[in-house]
Amino acid sequence: MDGEVEVVGLAAGTNAGLLAQQARAFHPRVAALCDAAQSPALTASLADTAVRVLAGPEGVAEVATLAEADTVISAMVGFAGLAPTLGAVRAGKAVALANKESLVAGGHLVRAAQKESGARVFPVDSEHAALSQCLEGCRDGAVKRLVLTASGGPFWGKKAAEVAAASRAQALAHPVWRMGAKITVDSATLMNKGLEVIEAHWLFDMPWDRIDVLIHPQSVVHSLVEMADGSYVAQLATADMRLPLQYALTYPERRAVRFRTEPLDLAALGRLEFARPSLEEFPCFALALAAGRAGGAFPAIMSAANEVAVGEFLGDRLPFGAIAEVIRATLDAGAADAAFETYGDIARADAWARKRAAEEAGRLTRARR
Amino acid sequence: MDGEVEVVGLAAGTNAGLLAQQARAFHPRVAALCDAAQSPALTASLADTAVRVLAGPEGVAEVATLAEADTVISAMVGFAGLAPTLGAVRAGKAVALANKESLVAGGHLVRAAQKESGARVFPVDSEHAALSQCLEGCRDGAVKRLVLTASGGPFWGKKAAEVAAASRAQALAHPVWRMGAKITVDSATLMNKGLEVIEAHWLFDMPWDRIDVLIHPQSVVHSLVEMADGSYVAQLATADMRLPLQYALTYPERRAVRFRTEPLDLAALGRLEFARPSLEEFPCFALALAAGRAGGAFPAIMSAANEVAVGEFLGDRLPFGAIAEVIRATLDAGAADAAFETYGDIARADAWARKRAAEEAGRLTRARR
Repeated sequence: MDGEVEVVGLAAGTNAGLLAQQARAFHPRVAALCDAAQSPALTASLADTAVRVLAGPEGVAEVATLAEADTVISAMVGFAGLAPTLGAVRAGKAVALANKESLVAGGHLVRAAQKESGARVFPVDSEHAALSQCLEGCRDGAVKRLVLTASGGPFWGKKAAEVAAASRAQALAHPVWRMGAKITVDSATLMNKGLEVIEAHWLFDMPWDRIDVLIHPQSVVHSLVEMADGSYVAQLATADMRLPLQYALTYPERRAVRFRTEPLDLAALGRLEFARPSLEEFPCFALALAAGRAGGAFPAIMSAANEVAVGEFLGDRLPFGAIAEVIRATLDAGAADAAFETYGDIARADAWARKRAAEEAGRLTRARR
Repeated sequence: MDGEVEVVGLAAGTNAGLLAQQARAFHPRVAALCDAAQSPALTASLADTAVRVLAGPEGVAEVATLAEADTVISAMVGFAGLAPTLGAVRAGKAVALANKESLVAGGHLVRAAQKESGARVFPVDSEHAALSQCLEGCRDGAVKRLVLTASGGPFWGKKAAEVAAASRAQALAHPVWRMGAKITVDSATLMNKGLEVIEAHWLFDMPWDRIDVLIHPQSVVHSLVEMADGSYVAQLATADMRLPLQYALTYPERRAVRFRTEPLDLAALGRLEFARPSLEEFPCFALALAAGRAGGAFPAIMSAANEVAVGEFLGDRLPFGAIAEVIRATLDAGAADAAFETYGDIARADAWARKRAAEEAGRLTRARR
C-alpha cells in the first residue's frame, strides 16, 4: 500500500519522542500528544518541519476528525480512546478500531453514532476482524453464534490459586502475541476475552447467549461463526496484527501483503487444539461476562477498574490474583441505577470507578504489608 | 424442508427394490432405472401407483430434464452420471452435483453448458460445498489458493508397500465417512482426493497450481480458501452429507437442520491435525494429479481405469496395490492425440479405457496365479 495511503494526522498518548520520529517519517499535517505536559518537547523536536503540533485530548479529538481523513485508526489504549473514536464515527469516517475499551464502555453511543452517520467500523482486533471476514456475504438468519478464540495466555491450564502470586514478567510472557503491557496482562487474566465478548456484542449486534469463547492455544483460528445449519466458517492466519489492519485499510479488496510475515503452514504446525475456558480459574473473564450481561454502567465500571488494577499490578503494587478482587469490589460498589446515556455519564462512571478501584487496590496493598 | 421440496422424479442404477420403496415414500411422477433388465420388476412393484416407470439411460436422462424440476440432484456413481448431469445443466436446472466423475471426465462440457444455460452447479461433495461456502461473498482477486482436506483414509501413515496386499474389508474401513464402496476405496487410495482436485479445477475455474491438498484425519475442516493476504477462510462441520445437500437445496438461505446430527464440538474434539500427503505412498493420488494437469482425455481415461480397477479389487480379483498399476498402464497406453471435444469423444475414451484397464487387470490377475 506504499504510496496509496497518505498519513494526514498522527496522535499519541505520552511518548513525544516516538511521535516525533513517526511524524518525520510520514509527514502528517498535524501531530497531537494527549499528554499536554509533553507537547512542548514535541513542538521543539518538530520545529524545523511543517507539522502542526496539538496538545491534550482536544488535540487528539481534532486529529480524529480531520476533514482530509477518510479512515481513522483508533488504537489508543483504554477509556481515553472513546472520545476520539466517537468523534471519528460522528464525522462519518471509516474507523479501524483497535481500542476495545471504547466499545466496552460506550458501545451504545458508538452504535447510535454509526446509525446516524453511516460510518463503517472495521474491527482491527484479530478476533473481530476474523468474525467480520467470516460474516462477509452472510445473509440475515444465516448466523447462529459467534465463537471467539482465546490463546489462554501464559497461565492456561493452571489453577487460579497457582498464579495468584505470579510476577509481572510471568504475566507478560504471552505465548503468541507481542503486544502492549496492558493487553498482555488482560490476556493472562482472560479479561481481554471478556472485553472482546462485549466488543462483539456491540460490533455485530449479537445477543449475549449467541457469543461464545473457545481456548485455542495456537492462536491460528482467530474466530469462528456457527451458521444456522450447525456448520462453521472460520478465519485462520498467522498472528500478525498488520493483517487485520491491512484488511481494514484495503476493504473491500483483499491484497497480497508487501511486508514480511510468516506464511501459515498448517501441515508444519501439525495440530490445532481447542478447549473450553474455565470461569472458575479465570475470575476476571467471569466478571467481564457478568458485567456485559448486566449492562448499563457495569461494563464501563468493570473496564475502568481493570485498567487501574492492571496498572497497579504492572507497578508491582498489587499481586496478580488481586486484579479480580479489585474489579469485583468496584463492581459491587457500583451504582446500578445511575444514569448511563451520554458521554458525560460514561465519563463520570469511569472516573468514579477509577477512584473506587484505586482505593480498593490501596486497601489490598496495605493489607499485604 | 418437509413439505417445501417436492420430489417429481427419481432415478437409480440397478436397485429396483430400493427405488420402488423410495417411489412409494416420495410419490414422484416418474421413476427410472438405468439397468433396463431390472425395470420390469420396478414396473410390477409400482403397478398399483400413479408412478410412470422408465428404463435405461434414456429414462434416466428424461428424469434429469423433467420440466417440473427446478433442481436435479446428480448422485449416480461413476461415468454414468455425466450424461444426465449434462442434460440437467443444458436444461438450465440448478444441479446439486455429488457425481465427481462427470466433472473429471467431462468438466469442459459441463462448464460450456453452464455458460450457455446459466445453470448453477452446487457441489454436494463436502469439500467443494465447503469451498463454495468459503468463497461466498469473495471478490475477484481475493483468492490465492484452494486447499482441499483429505481424511487420509484407513491407510494414512502407512507405506504403499505395507498396504499393497490390503483386504477389501481393510480398505472399506473408512475412519470418518460411511459411503458407498467405490468412493471408500477411492479414499483409501487417495484417488478420491485426486478426483476432487480435478473437480475443483472445473467447478471454480482454478489453475492446477492454485489447488492444494492437506491431510486432516478428523475430517472436521472440510476445506479452506487461502486469500490474497495469506489468511484463510475455512468451513468446519460434522461429517454428515445431509449438510451440503441441504445447503444446495436451500441456497441462498441457510437453515437450521431438522434431522438428527451430531453437533460439532471443537472443545470436546480437542484437536485438529494436519499433514502433507505423500505422492509416493499414494500413487493413485499422484496419477490423478498428473492426469488432471495433462488434460484432454487423460482424466477421463484415468477415472475409467480407476472404476474398473476398483471393481476388480472389490470383486477380490485384484490386490489393493495393483489398482495404481492398472491406472498407470492404461494411462501409458492412452492416445494423447485423440479428439476430446464432444460427449461422443469422451464416451469413446471412457469405453477404450475400460477395455484396456480390464485387460491390464486380467493380465495382473493371471500373473499372480
